[in-house]
Amino acid sequence: MRNVYVAGLGLTAFSRLEFPLVELAGYPAMQAMKDAGVDRVDHLYVANMGGSRLNRQTGLASAVVDSLSLTPAGAESIENGPASGASALKQGYMAVASGLHDVVMVVGAERMREVNNLEATDFVATLTHPLAEYIYGVTLPSLAGMFTRLYMEKYGVTSRHLAMVAVKNHDNALLNPFAHIHQKITLEGILDSPEAMTNNPYVAEPLRFFDCCPVSDGGACLILVSEEEAKKLKKPLVRLAGVGQATDTHTVQERRDPTDLLAVRAAAAQAFAMAKVKPSDVGVAELHDAFTILEIVESEEVGFFKKGEGHRALERGETRLDGRIPINTSGGLKGKGHPVGATGVGQAHEIVTQLRGEAKKRQVKNARVGFTCNFGGFGNNVVCLVFVREG
Amino acid sequence: MRNVYVAGLGLTAFSRLEFPLVELAGYPAMQAMKDAGVDRVDHLYVANMGGSRLNRQTGLASAVVDSLSLTPAGAESIENGPASGASALKQGYMAVASGLHDVVMVVGAERMREVNNLEATDFVATLTHPLAEYIYGVTLPSLAGMFTRLYMEKYGVTSRHLAMVAVKNHDNALLNPFAHIHQKITLEGILDSPEAMTNNPYVAEPLRFFDCCPVSDGGACLILVSEEEAKKLKKPLVRLAGVGQATDTHTVQERRDPTDLLAVRAAAAQAFAMAKVKPSDVGVAELHDAFTILEIVESEEVGFFKKGEGHRALERGETRLDGRIPINTSGGLKGKGHPVGATGVGQAHEIVTQLRGEAKKRQVKNARVGFTCNFGGFGNNVVCLVFVREG
Repeated sequence: MRNVYVAGLGLTAFSRLEFPLVELAGYPAMQAMKDAGVDRVDHLYVANMGGSRLNRQTGLASAVVDSLSLTPAGAESIENGPASGASALKQGYMAVASGLHDVVMVVGAERMREVNNLEATDFVATLTHPLAEYIYGVTLPSLAGMFTRLYMEKYGVTSRHLAMVAVKNHDNALLNPFAHIHQKITLEGILDSPEAMTNNPYVAEPLRFFDCCPVSDGGACLILVSEEEAKKLKKPLVRLAGVGQATDTHTVQERRDPTDLLAVRAAAAQAFAMAKVKPSDVGVAELHDAFTILEIVESEEVGFFKKGEGHRALERGETRLDGRIPINTSGGLKGKGHPVGATGVGQAHEIVTQLRGEAKKRQVKNARVGFTCNFGGFGNNVVCLVFVREG
Repeated sequence: MRNVYVAGLGLTAFSRLEFPLVELAGYPAMQAMKDAGVDRVDHLYVANMGGSRLNRQTGLASAVVDSLSLTPAGAESIENGPASGASALKQGYMAVASGLHDVVMVVGAERMREVNNLEATDFVATLTHPLAEYIYGVTLPSLAGMFTRLYMEKYGVTSRHLAMVAVKNHDNALLNPFAHIHQKITLEGILDSPEAMTNNPYVAEPLRFFDCCPVSDGGACLILVSEEEAKKLKKPLVRLAGVGQATDTHTVQERRDPTDLLAVRAAAAQAFAMAKVKPSDVGVAELHDAFTILEIVESEEVGFFKKGEGHRALERGETRLDGRIPINTSGGLKGKGHPVGATGVGQAHEIVTQLRGEAKKRQVKNARVGFTCNFGGFGNNVVCLVFVREG
């Protein structure tokens, strides 16, 4: 296999964006081409989950290629629920690694706020099992609520720990001009004060409003290139060194122990093995905190902390911007936002930005290895990536 | 790049099928595993276009992996309009060629008849340009009608030639037990008789009912493997030797000459160059005859006949089952059916079946090279594949 490098980056703000879906993909794509200094692309992948239902658009990849005047480059859309972005990066990796293409664009884009929150919630719920979950009215918040309760009872995680994730990620988001949520929150304000029950109501007990990510529009882009193309770059070289992916039972109820996220563990182990690095080598990570509990659990399953000890490390501040292993420096899904198809590409965008030393106010120090975990379904299809700065 | 072989085949009948979408994918997948004699799969691609809107299902690939008990294999869905199937085969090719995976399953599945014909037509129309075509009420039949008129005027194609494609492909479909349409038609019956205007009304002038493919449900599967895995097979060895893909302007109106299908030409040329064979080496081909005109035009653009001479070759019977270059031996989209996400995989299924010598009553003689053209959008994203029988 050939080595694969990140040549260019592009990003929209994650927010409510009143632009057509094709432009949410096209804008970061143009930025990434400029950043990479390339004027051609051999192939393009578009990560998107909701175009057909939410925006009445199929064949999105063809529309993006055309709007960027990149014809006759081939293109297709990749859908893997909320892990569509990292899945598309995996396809991009293979396209370059195989030798079939030299310059590959991977765009993630989603326009979810075209519909109301009820339809958006129903739409996301269609990723659950159609016959064993969806038809019974299961939603992602409801699954996450039940999961959180089990985790609290087994490992002693409290609502306070969950809120700490939210506070940390809102703090990070305040340093990220592209984040959806720019709102300072405190444990006092969302948990202890008399107003907390109003400000921070229950969504799916024990998860409250500030435990859940927002519904966002947005786009993100990475350009991946071969080693030969990478030599022409003027930016610091970052290699996509590890790609891991694993699935678990589609329904949560069938898992032997629902608090074990086996697919996260397997995908991370694969990615680390491929990159020939260890979890302790990682200097910055983006984890998939669609719900606050997930950041804690993933930080254990990927190998940063022992099982059941993630919330202790969080308490000690180890995952803060100035901690031992800063997690979700971008603000995460909680603070930066979660335009589902764009999320995995956005995570990679943050990691490469950090490894290049371009993260400005939220720059971590001395990171040479970065990691992303993009979580599809309720843990039934997970893609992890390892990035390494070279030179 | 490593060589890539076809190890296993599976297919449902293309028809109206009252099974959940996940089963339309799972059934041919199980057949293909049995055919290949494999009990594990490293990665799975699902080609699907309409799951989210027509069947309220996203994350389909995760559901298929689970229903086949193939966890923890990674999986994602690939969408490239009606060319989703061949796009997924391209991803499968790269997954094996890159060395990342050894045994890759590519399933195409679509359940379109869950909605009525009006919604199905609107759904397919969402692959046109959202701002320059779709909002004006353009549908695929309307684009094809205008295209056909231009082609008739420029090259002397007549309604009789179009009907000849339909008659030939219905004849072929009668020999294919998996075809959607088992109905003998004649030029007399659909064109010349007093009943023709009733039996075969105009859909989008000059295209009539029998010029348009049906709306179908169905699934198809190929298993692709590395050379090392292929050595274990007991079936005749067929190599996926060439993969080509090209895009054209998203709107038809922007093309310099709308009768030139540049993406077909470019994708075919790429696939032939990669496989190191010529169009004249091809012994059997499946072309994307969603409308009868397309079989004629594609037979020219891919290089079987000179531009403007496809209808003459058709007249001479060169594309019949016993002709020089049999086209759409399966019945094509016209006779076999067109479950959009499954179509490209179904085309490959037919070609490999022919090259293996397993096509029974519709078996062509002495074919060692086979070809498929899967046409996305209205010619804006086309994927061509070349298969070669070895040994």
